[in-house]
Amino acid sequence: MQFTSEKRLDDGVLEREFTLGEIPGILWTPGSASAPTPLILIGHPGGLRMMHPRLAGRARHYAVGYGFAAATIELPGSGERPRSAAAEQARGDLRRAMAAGQPVGEIVDRLVLPLVEKAVPEWQAALDALLSLPGIGGPVGYSGGVISIGVRLAVAEPRVVAAGLFAGSFVPRAIFEEARRVTIPLHVLLQWDDEGNDRQAALDLFDAFGSEEKSLHANMGGHTGVPAFAGEDAARFFARHLS
Amino acid sequence: MQFTSEKRLDDGVLEREFTLGEIPGILWTPGSASAPTPLILIGHPGGLRMMHPRLAGRARHYAVGYGFAAATIELPGSGERPRSAAAEQARGDLRRAMAAGQPVGEIVDRLVLPLVEKAVPEWQAALDALLSLPGIGGPVGYSGGVISIGVRLAVAEPRVVAAGLFAGSFVPRAIFEEARRVTIPLHVLLQWDDEGNDRQAALDLFDAFGSEEKSLHANMGGHTGVPAFAGEDAARFFARHLS
Repeated sequence: MQFTSEKRLDDGVLEREFTLGEIPGILWTPGSASAPTPLILIGHPGGLRMMHPRLAGRARHYAVGYGFAAATIELPGSGERPRSAAAEQARGDLRRAMAAGQPVGEIVDRLVLPLVEKAVPEWQAALDALLSLPGIGGPVGYSGGVISIGVRLAVAEPRVVAAGLFAGSFVPRAIFEEARRVTIPLHVLLQWDDEGNDRQAALDLFDAFGSEEKSLHANMGGHTGVPAFAGEDAARFFARHLS
Repeated sequence: MQFTSEKRLDDGVLEREFTLGEIPGILWTPGSASAPTPLILIGHPGGLRMMHPRLAGRARHYAVGYGFAAATIELPGSGERPRSAAAEQARGDLRRAMAAGQPVGEIVDRLVLPLVEKAVPEWQAALDALLSLPGIGGPVGYSGGVISIGVRLAVAEPRVVAAGLFAGSFVPRAIFEEARRVTIPLHVLLQWDDEGNDRQAALDLFDAFGSEEKSLHANMGGHTGVPAFAGEDAARFFARHLS
């Protein structure tokens, strides 16, 4: 892990960009911390540059409000990373199938399963590097998008002890089955009036999770209109489980 | 409205029992308040004596944490109030129909609609009396059980500006239609693994609400096992809308 830039933000949070091999990432740490801090891995749909303002907003909220560190890495095939021809093909197929009202299950498998297979070990490698830094001690939470990556991490990575997930429809059947094996506390956000989301599929996935503590928070506001208070509730979920 | 007893609790909250005509009720006010306080009407399934510890717990949380007053009254046909023969008959019919796996829609109408018709004007009369007391100024929220009463109050009573409801299955079709006319902010609690609750009916009702701001919080823990953090989230909902 190599740091490539460093910026002290006006709330005291230190924002550092890094590379992990060829993978770009960003680490946010609180301005002052007396003990090693918990860490939240912030997931996203890919495209770090474009997502930066929203990811930084969440990270700074965790850092200033709760003293947590937060970090994210670019997804395979997104942002400045090399495209995957197979994923680009699947993405096009998905668009066409949806426009034509055709079933998408097989295409979702082709699009999402290779992404999960490649991304999850990368997040785990990032975790190795991040937890070896002075001042970052865990425990670790995963927060965010590409719910299939969150599910796999929740099952496969014992250092992740709590996950806040954004409900999404495009979940391969194999990941749905994996959800039954998730046992860590979950906080799932669903935009009830999200027209790009299959609400019933999201409810079915929530039902499938094996966790004894799982909460679904459904709100209005459309796909990108998660209300500020819903972000607050999610942050308090992490405060309960990481503090 | 006549006060019949008065008790200062160890957190400074003043608990006063009262009667409004023949209806018993309880009022909790914060130990110290410099200005007229908002008021939360606390709903319940009937039976004040039995429900008292849980209702007092919620009221004291609102009073100590947020400086709100809270009040409740007994439901028609419950506790020490005269039984309704028709309601007792409907209750028995409902038990038998459910045990036999028969449809219950008509029985739910017979049980719940007269209750709503009678209870809602009583809550409104209580509101008249409570808001005329020194130190209680509104705005008013409704929090609690018998979701059909909450729906009718939300539609019919303009002084109620926010409602926190417990999802329930036994909602008459007429009330379901009324839900579309609700426009105030809503916070709906659903126990996801509540075996006595028809989850799909609860989700359909949530979907029907006309409110621009509505949130569904689904948690585990069975019918009576609402987690403490879910109560916290509900209290913050009222803090946002009544403070």
